Amino acid sequence: EDLIGKHKFRYGQAETENQVGVATGLAYTTVGGDTLQIEVSLSPGKGKLILTGKLGDVMKESAQTALSFVRSKTESLGLDANFHEAHDIHIHVPEGAVPKDGPSAGITIATALVSALSKQPIRREVGMTGEITLRGRVLPIGGVKEKTLSAHRAGLTTIILPKDNERDIEDIPESVREDLTFKFVSHADEVLKIALEGGGVQ
Amino acid sequence: EDLIGKHKFRYGQAETENQVGVATGLAYTTVGGDTLQIEVSLSPGKGKLILTGKLGDVMKESAQTALSFVRSKTESLGLDANFHEAHDIHIHVPEGAVPKDGPSAGITIATALVSALSKQPIRREVGMTGEITLRGRVLPIGGVKEKTLSAHRAGLTTIILPKDNERDIEDIPESVREDLTFKFVSHADEVLKIALEGGGVQ
Amino acid sequence: EDLIGKHKFRYGQAETENQVGVATGLAYTTVGGDTLQIEVSLSPGKGKLILTGKLGDVMKESAQTALSFVRSKTESLGLDANFHEAHDIHIHVPEGAVPKDGPSAGITIATALVSALSKQPIRREVGMTGEITLRGRVLPIGGVKEKTLSAHRAGLTTIILPKDNERDIEDIPESVREDLTFKFVSHADEVLKIALEGGGVQ
Amino acid sequence: EDLIGKHKFRYGQAETENQVGVATGLAYTTVGGDTLQIEVSLSPGKGKLILTGKLGDVMKESAQTALSFVRSKTESLGLDANFHEAHDIHIHVPEGAVPKDGPSAGITIATALVSALSKQPIRREVGMTGEITLRGRVLPIGGVKEKTLSAHRAGLTTIILPKDNERDIEDIPESVREDLTFKFVSHADEVLKIALEGGGVQ
Amino acid sequence: EDLIGKHKFRYGQAETENQVGVATGLAYTTVGGDTLQIEVSLSPGKGKLILTGKLGDVMKESAQTALSFVRSKTESLGLDANFHEAHDIHIHVPEGAVPKDGPSAGITIATALVSALSKQPIRREVGMTGEITLRGRVLPIGGVKEKTLSAHRAGLTTIILPKDNERDIEDIPESVREDLTFKFVSHADEVLKIALEGGGVQ
Amino acid sequence: EDLIGKHKFRYGQAETENQVGVATGLAYTTVGGDTLQIEVSLSPGKGKLILTGKLGDVMKESAQTALSFVRSKTESLGLDANFHEAHDIHIHVPEGAVPKDGPSAGITIATALVSALSKQPIRREVGMTGEITLRGRVLPIGGVKEKTLSAHRAGLTTIILPKDNERDIEDIPESVREDLTFKFVSHADEVLKIALEGGGVQ
Ligand SMILES: [Ca+2]
Ligand SMILES: [Ca+2]
Ligand SMILES: [Ca+2]
Ligand SMILES: [Ca+2]
Ligand SMILES: [Ca+2]
Ligand SMILES: [Ca+2]
Ligand SMILES: [Ca+2]
Ligand SMILES: [Ca+2]
Ligand SMILES: [Ca+2]
Ligand SMILES: [Ca+2]
Ligand SMILES: [Ca+2]
Ligand SMILES: [Ca+2]
Repeated sequence: EDLIGKHKFRYGQAETENQVGVATGLAYTTVGGDTLQIEVSLSPGKGKLILTGKLGDVMKESAQTALSFVRSKTESLGLDANFHEAHDIHIHVPEGAVPKDGPSAGITIATALVSALSKQPIRREVGMTGEITLRGRVLPIGGVKEKTLSAHRAGLTTIILPKDNERDIEDIPESVREDLTFKFVSHADEVLKIALEGGGVQ
Repeated sequence: EDLIGKHKFRYGQAETENQVGVATGLAYTTVGGDTLQIEVSLSPGKGKLILTGKLGDVMKESAQTALSFVRSKTESLGLDANFHEAHDIHIHVPEGAVPKDGPSAGITIATALVSALSKQPIRREVGMTGEITLRGRVLPIGGVKEKTLSAHRAGLTTIILPKDNERDIEDIPESVREDLTFKFVSHADEVLKIALEGGGVQ
Repeated sequence: EDLIGKHKFRYGQAETENQVGVATGLAYTTVGGDTLQIEVSLSPGKGKLILTGKLGDVMKESAQTALSFVRSKTESLGLDANFHEAHDIHIHVPEGAVPKDGPSAGITIATALVSALSKQPIRREVGMTGEITLRGRVLPIGGVKEKTLSAHRAGLTTIILPKDNERDIEDIPESVREDLTFKFVSHADEVLKIALEGGGVQ
Repeated sequence: EDLIGKHKFRYGQAETENQVGVATGLAYTTVGGDTLQIEVSLSPGKGKLILTGKLGDVMKESAQTALSFVRSKTESLGLDANFHEAHDIHIHVPEGAVPKDGPSAGITIATALVSALSKQPIRREVGMTGEITLRGRVLPIGGVKEKTLSAHRAGLTTIILPKDNERDIEDIPESVREDLTFKFVSHADEVLKIALEGGGVQ
Repeated sequence: EDLIGKHKFRYGQAETENQVGVATGLAYTTVGGDTLQIEVSLSPGKGKLILTGKLGDVMKESAQTALSFVRSKTESLGLDANFHEAHDIHIHVPEGAVPKDGPSAGITIATALVSALSKQPIRREVGMTGEITLRGRVLPIGGVKEKTLSAHRAGLTTIILPKDNERDIEDIPESVREDLTFKFVSHADEVLKIALEGGGVQ
Repeated sequence: EDLIGKHKFRYGQAETENQVGVATGLAYTTVGGDTLQIEVSLSPGKGKLILTGKLGDVMKESAQTALSFVRSKTESLGLDANFHEAHDIHIHVPEGAVPKDGPSAGITIATALVSALSKQPIRREVGMTGEITLRGRVLPIGGVKEKTLSAHRAGLTTIILPKDNERDIEDIPESVREDLTFKFVSHADEVLKIALEGGGVQ
């Protein structure tokens, strides 16, 4: 019911301050790119994973993969090794009526999770996109041009992209590219260093 | 079987007194706006969430998001941090045979939940609509005109709307607008302050 | 296999004595009204709710709503506050091969539940129909004329109807109406007072 | 794969001795009547109910209803009140590839359950058919003529039928009727008295 | 992907030595008979039953029935009465991409289960087919001729068939029949005596 | 969304160093062969198995079969007999948006599992394909030519194939075959000896 009206083409805007548990991803739809917020909330619980925001199966699996990556890295990230058993983890992606799918939010989900667990704020000027694997490899994604344009429009200034997408930025207009800092990464550890205030270590 | 007959177009009416665990939302259908009651009931239990009232998937996810928001705010709201584990929570939206969907009841569900948990009555003259995110952000919704007309018809006098819907009220006839107080909010904390007798704090 | 034969149009008949855990509801189908029995059985268990009788989703949700209403009222009803955790509750609606749906059995289910829990018999001459909400509100239903005719045919003499259906009884033939006592209710507490031998309190 | 060949029209035959946990039901298909065996097996467990034999939803619900009836009658039947929590209960209806549905095996399932729990053998000459309700009422079923003919062919001599099916036996040929003893029942307690060696009490 | 190529019509071959937890069944497809291996593996666990090998619903129910039969016979089989609660049981039927269904592997599954639980090897020259009921009855199956030919081709020499299939062997060519020993059984206890090295008792 | 663009035909490349918990499988699609990585991650947990990477039912069953094989071999592999109960096991196959199915990754999954559990690295030059059974038998698969060409293209030098696929390598061009060492195996124990640095024993 809420999808009709003036707000249909509402574009994302950068956060006004660094926040804990909220990372900015870049999405790619048939009508162009957009930014999206990945929100993570922890509550005392028993290890339940709640995924909401009309997410497709691939995106849900991507969230599980990001979570297992973080769970396997608790020691090097300075996190409680048993956080999973003592908390319920809710990952939500507004806007709730807009269907979302694909693996390209993998590193964004991992970043929001580590932020929520470590209480380290995420730099508000950073947007990112990239598939994550279970061991933290960052795999290339599609729609680099459209995603980057939407990030620029939203006021983001640092863009994290997979190393294997490096050649795609030649498609982005010079006038946009000069406003942005691109970070090309091959592992999620690099993403955490760039996006988190504390660099992902405690 | 019960959907045919004289009562087909029964419209909502404001409660006759302030109540605990019941908030008034505004809905938008193809044939116009309507008010709906969000009822929340707590019973001794083990953290089970029961959602009834022929709710679609987006509305169910919206209820989960509202609940996680409340669970993450127990401290500032003065609620028991472990309420979730000691209670089963039932959220029901009459009328049970009418299908309902969409994210716009998010803040209404959050308000009914906090009322039920804190035993603070909800002001009977308040109607509201707005999507909620996991951290309590209030996102804009559609159908402001129709929703407001139905709230007016039901006898409500205070209407809570998302900040990003402020410009939509120019579509509402002057004769209706003058009877109503509009509250434009960007965070669920503001909703609780307006709608709950005690302002959402204990 | 059992649906073909002489018994196809078997109509309900009033119980021959007051019983515990069995309430008489009024149903409305495309070929007219009928009475149905709501049976509730408790066994030592762990809080499992079993719903049988080819019930549709709306009717199942209605049963959950009726149960939560009863669970939230244990104190005022003089019931054990933790009955839910120590028992499995089975709600069955014969005849098992006949599909049933809709919210109008809500107050009937609530009555059968309170009878089974309190061991108070239900008055055999009482038939009822009405949607229940989580806080016990009784909402109007359809098919008042057909339902009342079937109740009359079954030998019932007291009919409980929602307050908002009061004007519908003008459609019922005078010759039938004069045999019946109508009770118009707006809350389930009134239903329990009328239908249970002990008036729903212990 | 196993449904083709010489055995396609294999008819049931009466057991050669009284057995524990196996009751003989009467079924009715588009090509005539047949007998079927309801087998019940108990194993040390945690209250799991396993239903096999390609049973349709109505028949599965009928089995749950029969089980709840037995669970609510443990005291009068001399059974352990907590049997349900200490055992897994498996109800199987051979032949495994033949689909079965409908409520008419209700009293047969209840009888096999009580036999397995009480270790009382079931009289081998008894066949039965009837829907069971949660409080043990026996409701009428269809196909009385075809079911009785198949029972006769199988060598059964005592036929238990619902009271409300009494008039249906006038359709059965005199030559068959004279070989059979009919028992018309309105409650499952009567079924247990007739079918179990010990009459269903210990 | 793996179903295309030279191996499409790979036929089964008898094991080269007696093995624990692997029984040889006989299957019947539209293109003829084949042998299949039923593998059973036990691991320390909590009573979970895992069924793999692209099994249809009837075959899955058949496996559950075989397991319940074995669980109800622990005493006479000399097995630990509580094995079910202390182990997870995995039943697999290679080849994993080939769909399989029907009840005729019942006795084969039971034999593999008892072998795995008792550590008694299964005689490598034995092939078998037959539906099992909850109390161990062996019911007739189809495709005796095709199944026997495939067993012969695989090098098996002892064939266990249901008693009620005895007349079907007249369809098997004399030249094949003379190479084989047929065992006709009516109860699973007989199967265990023939197929297990130790005869199914300890 | 991520499936469109320059990276559509990205082929696999051998790892740059030996790794723990990552094995290289060979896949066969309608457009040719490809390599894929099977990643295994262990976290403190309760025995949950998580399977991601858009896997079809046959591949999921294959993963369960590989896991049960490893669970039944803990003693001979020098693994903790109860690892399953103390850990959650996540098996992921990038790329997350590409559907995968079939049983031919069986031995690859088993190898990655044993590597993750024993912390023994997997030789980076080894690629493998073969269905696994519950007792570790390796069954033949399809697409040997296409799979081998993709392994060669990715820089792998040792190829593990099922014994029953030995004759298929005559289809591979001589110029490719001379660069590769083929290992033909009939049991998963042989796979572990070849692929793991420590030969699968501790
Ligand atoms: Ca947007
Ligand atoms: Ca610029
Ligand atoms: Ca309404
Ligand atoms: Ca006015
Ligand atoms: Ca009726
Ligand atoms: Ca009259
Ligand atoms: Ca038959
Ligand atoms: Ca005769
Ligand atoms: Ca084969
Ligand atoms: Ca010969
Ligand atoms: Ca690839
Ligand atoms: Ca070469």
